[in-house]
Amino acid sequence: MSEDAPPFQTQDHDSLTIPLLSHQQRSINSTSQVAIVGANVCPIESLDYEYWMAFLVFSLSNLALTLFAAIITAFISPAAAGSGIPEVKAYLNGVDAPGILSIRTLIVKIVGSIAAVSSSLLVGKAGPMVHTGSCIAALFGQGGSRRYGLTWKWLRFFKNDRDRRDLVTCGSAAGIAAAFRAPVGGVLWRSSLLWRAFFTTAVVAIVLRALIDVCLSGKCGLFGKGGLIMFDVYSANVSYHLADVPPVLALGVIGGILGSFYNFLLVKVLKVYNLINEKGIFYKIFIACTISIFTSCLLFGLPWLVSCQSCPSDASEDCPTIGRSGNYKKFQCPSGHYNDLASLIFNTNDDAIRNLFSKNTDTEFQLSTMLIFFVTCFILSIFSYGIVAPAGLFVPVIVTGASYGRFIGMLIGSWGNLSHGLYAVLGAASFLGGSMRMTVSLCVIILELTNNLLLLPLIMVVLLVSKTVADAFNGNVYDLIMKVKGFPYLETHAEPYMRQLTVADVVSGPLQLCHGIEKVGNIVHILKTTMHHGFPVIDESPHSESPVLYGLILRAHLIALLKKKAFLCTPVQLGADAFRHFSSDDFAKKGLGNVDKIEDIELTDEEMDMFLDLHPFTNASPYTVVETMSLAKALILFREVGLRHLLVIPKISSILFSLLLTNHIIQMPDAVTAESTSGGHIDKA
Amino acid sequence: MSEDAPPFQTQDHDSLTIPLLSHQQRSINSTSQVAIVGANVCPIESLDYEYWMAFLVFSLSNLALTLFAAIITAFISPAAAGSGIPEVKAYLNGVDAPGILSIRTLIVKIVGSIAAVSSSLLVGKAGPMVHTGSCIAALFGQGGSRRYGLTWKWLRFFKNDRDRRDLVTCGSAAGIAAAFRAPVGGVLWRSSLLWRAFFTTAVVAIVLRALIDVCLSGKCGLFGKGGLIMFDVYSANVSYHLADVPPVLALGVIGGILGSFYNFLLVKVLKVYNLINEKGIFYKIFIACTISIFTSCLLFGLPWLVSCQSCPSDASEDCPTIGRSGNYKKFQCPSGHYNDLASLIFNTNDDAIRNLFSKNTDTEFQLSTMLIFFVTCFILSIFSYGIVAPAGLFVPVIVTGASYGRFIGMLIGSWGNLSHGLYAVLGAASFLGGSMRMTVSLCVIILELTNNLLLLPLIMVVLLVSKTVADAFNGNVYDLIMKVKGFPYLETHAEPYMRQLTVADVVSGPLQLCHGIEKVGNIVHILKTTMHHGFPVIDESPHSESPVLYGLILRAHLIALLKKKAFLCTPVQLGADAFRHFSSDDFAKKGLGNVDKIEDIELTDEEMDMFLDLHPFTNASPYTVVETMSLAKALILFREVGLRHLLVIPKISSILFSLLLTNHIIQMPDAVTAESTSGGHIDKA
Repeated sequence: MSEDAPPFQTQDHDSLTIPLLSHQQRSINSTSQVAIVGANVCPIESLDYEYWMAFLVFSLSNLALTLFAAIITAFISPAAAGSGIPEVKAYLNGVDAPGILSIRTLIVKIVGSIAAVSSSLLVGKAGPMVHTGSCIAALFGQGGSRRYGLTWKWLRFFKNDRDRRDLVTCGSAAGIAAAFRAPVGGVLWRSSLLWRAFFTTAVVAIVLRALIDVCLSGKCGLFGKGGLIMFDVYSANVSYHLADVPPVLALGVIGGILGSFYNFLLVKVLKVYNLINEKGIFYKIFIACTISIFTSCLLFGLPWLVSCQSCPSDASEDCPTIGRSGNYKKFQCPSGHYNDLASLIFNTNDDAIRNLFSKNTDTEFQLSTMLIFFVTCFILSIFSYGIVAPAGLFVPVIVTGASYGRFIGMLIGSWGNLSHGLYAVLGAASFLGGSMRMTVSLCVIILELTNNLLLLPLIMVVLLVSKTVADAFNGNVYDLIMKVKGFPYLETHAEPYMRQLTVADVVSGPLQLCHGIEKVGNIVHILKTTMHHGFPVIDESPHSESPVLYGLILRAHLIALLKKKAFLCTPVQLGADAFRHFSSDDFAKKGLGNVDKIEDIELTDEEMDMFLDLHPFTNASPYTVVETMSLAKALILFREVGLRHLLVIPKISSILFSLLLTNHIIQMPDAVTAESTSGGHIDKA
Repeated sequence: MSEDAPPFQTQDHDSLTIPLLSHQQRSINSTSQVAIVGANVCPIESLDYEYWMAFLVFSLSNLALTLFAAIITAFISPAAAGSGIPEVKAYLNGVDAPGILSIRTLIVKIVGSIAAVSSSLLVGKAGPMVHTGSCIAALFGQGGSRRYGLTWKWLRFFKNDRDRRDLVTCGSAAGIAAAFRAPVGGVLWRSSLLWRAFFTTAVVAIVLRALIDVCLSGKCGLFGKGGLIMFDVYSANVSYHLADVPPVLALGVIGGILGSFYNFLLVKVLKVYNLINEKGIFYKIFIACTISIFTSCLLFGLPWLVSCQSCPSDASEDCPTIGRSGNYKKFQCPSGHYNDLASLIFNTNDDAIRNLFSKNTDTEFQLSTMLIFFVTCFILSIFSYGIVAPAGLFVPVIVTGASYGRFIGMLIGSWGNLSHGLYAVLGAASFLGGSMRMTVSLCVIILELTNNLLLLPLIMVVLLVSKTVADAFNGNVYDLIMKVKGFPYLETHAEPYMRQLTVADVVSGPLQLCHGIEKVGNIVHILKTTMHHGFPVIDESPHSESPVLYGLILRAHLIALLKKKAFLCTPVQLGADAFRHFSSDDFAKKGLGNVDKIEDIELTDEEMDMFLDLHPFTNASPYTVVETMSLAKALILFREVGLRHLLVIPKISSILFSLLLTNHIIQMPDAVTAESTSGGHIDKA
């Protein structure tokens, strides 16, 4: 469980001429430098000193790597900690928290993720890759980073929220596609923008394929071997029958319960971590180091508990091995024997998953080994997630699920017809379904990982059952993490209680109005006293016969106007030359997290008494709803059209009344409490 | 090219013990009864009389089957003609044309589709299966057919448009899943409702798998052999390199051009057919018979043009054959030789596709054969579509594309590394992309058909290129057919011209208002003089101080109120007991195409002078926009929220003004010209 270098399989031309089955059942594993040390390179046996030295080197190198990842994360970019998927999801839902998609985060995420995965922590790389893809997309969208002088003029086409969000959606799709080599799965993880995301992931697939082609010549070291399918262990026909359905259903039910329990524990641990983390940056790093040492002890200590297995006589590779690759790790066993738990632990996660998924390894593992491995993974993945380092959830969940599935498969034993490896695949599916709940995209990702469509009906059943069961307990893991992190999140579907409320019940006060031609001082007052991001603009006499709602103006635009100081001495309406002083750049969306603040604008008393004509800068056709509309109905409008602001108007029952009550800004209960952060947008999921 | 019985492969347990490659390169074909006749059962050679007799039997049986399909379609349910996908798409977009999803259509579609596919016409079965799935879903949704006394009380949970539409979406997904055994492709063909559609297609996958399991015992005749993957000819590793990309790109470009040209011709032919069909039902049947005879002549005549090939010495099956199955058809050839065009023609479409896709058949076909087959398929599929019989487009397009791709592959020959079969797969993808334009779902469907994810990058490239190229010329084939059929269709994306218009420019007049408490006579007058489906309700003094927009009432609800005749003698407002006379059934959505008409309601003069209080039955919070909103923006609202009606209000500039101009009903330019049909709904695609 060390460096997570992609474990490639040979995929040369010879493979066409030899039978597939013998070729693909067992893949060639590659284990990292660290694992070599742990696996005891020097073949002197039963020498306690050797083992203690090995443990020391193992745990110290793990600790050093973890420390490095934790320090760069904590000091340079705390936003890079964790999976990144909740942050990306939050961004796509309108929360534009500072630093989420900055260039610092990008660099820390890449470097830190490599260090964290290499340090034997049970953390994944898929989430960080999604975050990386999103960061790159966001940087492209804002034309580079102005702070570091890295800007490209020709990239600055994406001046508004919607275009940037679409770009980030495609970037995150590219991340999924690259992490799992699953282009279609990448398209599906956000179901919007099908066509553009498809284009993005197609490019990813082609680049991946081209790199694989280049590396086939053997110039890429560890990366030199491998194909497009990560766990290609089921090319053969799989047969299953009606009698196999009950155990599969049971797998789904238990997976759903385990998955929701996993989510529950993960959130509890995260909350505890949050409490400790609040005490200071060194507490954060302390937790990371503690978890690293704890992990090293577990990984090095547990293999001593299991009994040695004698090597099979027909083993297709060396048994036992002490090198960097090989599925039969010797560890402390006498010659002619191997330690099956060590074989799982001192391998990359990907190789461990491949071994668990393989179909002809039914006799390789013991029941007790499987149970120990499952419990270890379950615990480690929960405690490893919250530390201050980039840490994905996908791979840990797949490892845990695969070991759980294989354990169940071994329990069922000869009663069923399915191989233990198939149970592992289904176990991984059920645990993923129970924890992440994304049925369609997960289904496609699992298919793209294992490359066997014959498994499709079983995988669909398992995902359906586990998602349904888990939904009865709690939400999906990313939404729960978002809640813990305090990101507001607008639900896709209206909750039942929303049908009982009207929009008038949830409008946020106090109502602040601008007039069509407003005194600068009033605008400054409004901006300073409220944090709203949009304000209704009202026309009153003498500019119109009676008060009329003219439209909605954004805070960002008001600030841009104040910054330009193109004020009027008298309250007169501007003509067509209103934009004379402005270029489109003035109103362009700023880089993420960089917002001009009203406090930074200095105005003289004289200027405060001058006027601004807001008409040319106002959105004259904002979306409006009547105050009696049910909250559920307004929520649909908010989500589907991707609104940030919704004006609530009263019934036009009489003039006098409408004068006073004309407009409120509505803020959905959980939606735009992100008023403290800069402008974002609601995604239509 | 005859009966389209699913051509199954053996998938027994032995397959695990023999090398995959030799097992799967060539599948076992099965040809239908009709083809036996055509292929000359009696092995007497060069006997002209025999061939004439064979041709007679062949063409007469084809004619009989076509005639049967045409007659039941023309006389029982004309709505069952064609693919059905445009109709389903139209329904999901709010066009509730009579008979589209009725029980008559269902039966005619099933029986007629079997007859049409069996009659050697080049028509597909995927479209009819989608239509069938949608019909079944719609019948479930309305609780059976009241007309035929087949109703189930416990099924009548779907009383409103939205629920029924969702059910039909799932039904159509089930149809795609069943037609291609592609459950994930089925989910994706409409990207809404991911989770529910996933559930539906999962059930389809399980049922399919269970039926395959049952049939493995050999009790199902022709259906007894086969697996979940239809064209499983690429289980082996496929290798391709950078040098293979240019021909693949060329394939995409040509496929895009061909696909859009195909769409263009198809629409022209459809328009000509429409002109002839208008003359009467016998003209329709006459066209069908003509096409059938034309098809028979082509199919039986063309094989005479190609030269006989000598049988390969290492053929894995009998060569030549004259039976119902076999890839080397003898036709007119001397012994030891086979006719390669006859081998493609006198097979099922599925077997022809499988042969074209197969990788080790590079020497089996001649270049001239491929060209003839491609041109024949191109022409036949265009002329076969418009006849008055159920006829899908998918299979013809795949066959045409596969033969085009293989032809290109043979032209490129030894310059490329890819096998001719792979070119056929990519050719089918490019032609599908150029004609149907559904990138993501097509990609998944092709993957699920061929079961090789290694092809994914190539398929994605081809689809992207061909769709992009074809989009430059015209729209996708289903939208074009919808336009020819006169179904209104609301575009997903706003056209550039819409940005120049405001909603005020497109509101439909004349404006008809109801008052909160309205005279029955006025309501009848309004309903009789306009075809609008919704009317704004205004409150005026004395019920309110000044005129106020109260809400929107639907035509269907007004008619339900008139039918109940629970009128008031004086204009007073009703209290909470307004619903006393009504059950929820009165306002439930009727079966498709069954709408109560205002003309059917008879009212006395006395009743005409009575009053109705509309308040309890009015939607008091309709969606409204200001008249200055750009049409593009309103279109987004219309599509995303799935609206049927949108109220356009003027700026509330003064009371007097707002009194007069309060509301118009807006109808989007192309959207709801289906006012003549009953209520439908806009789908958010």
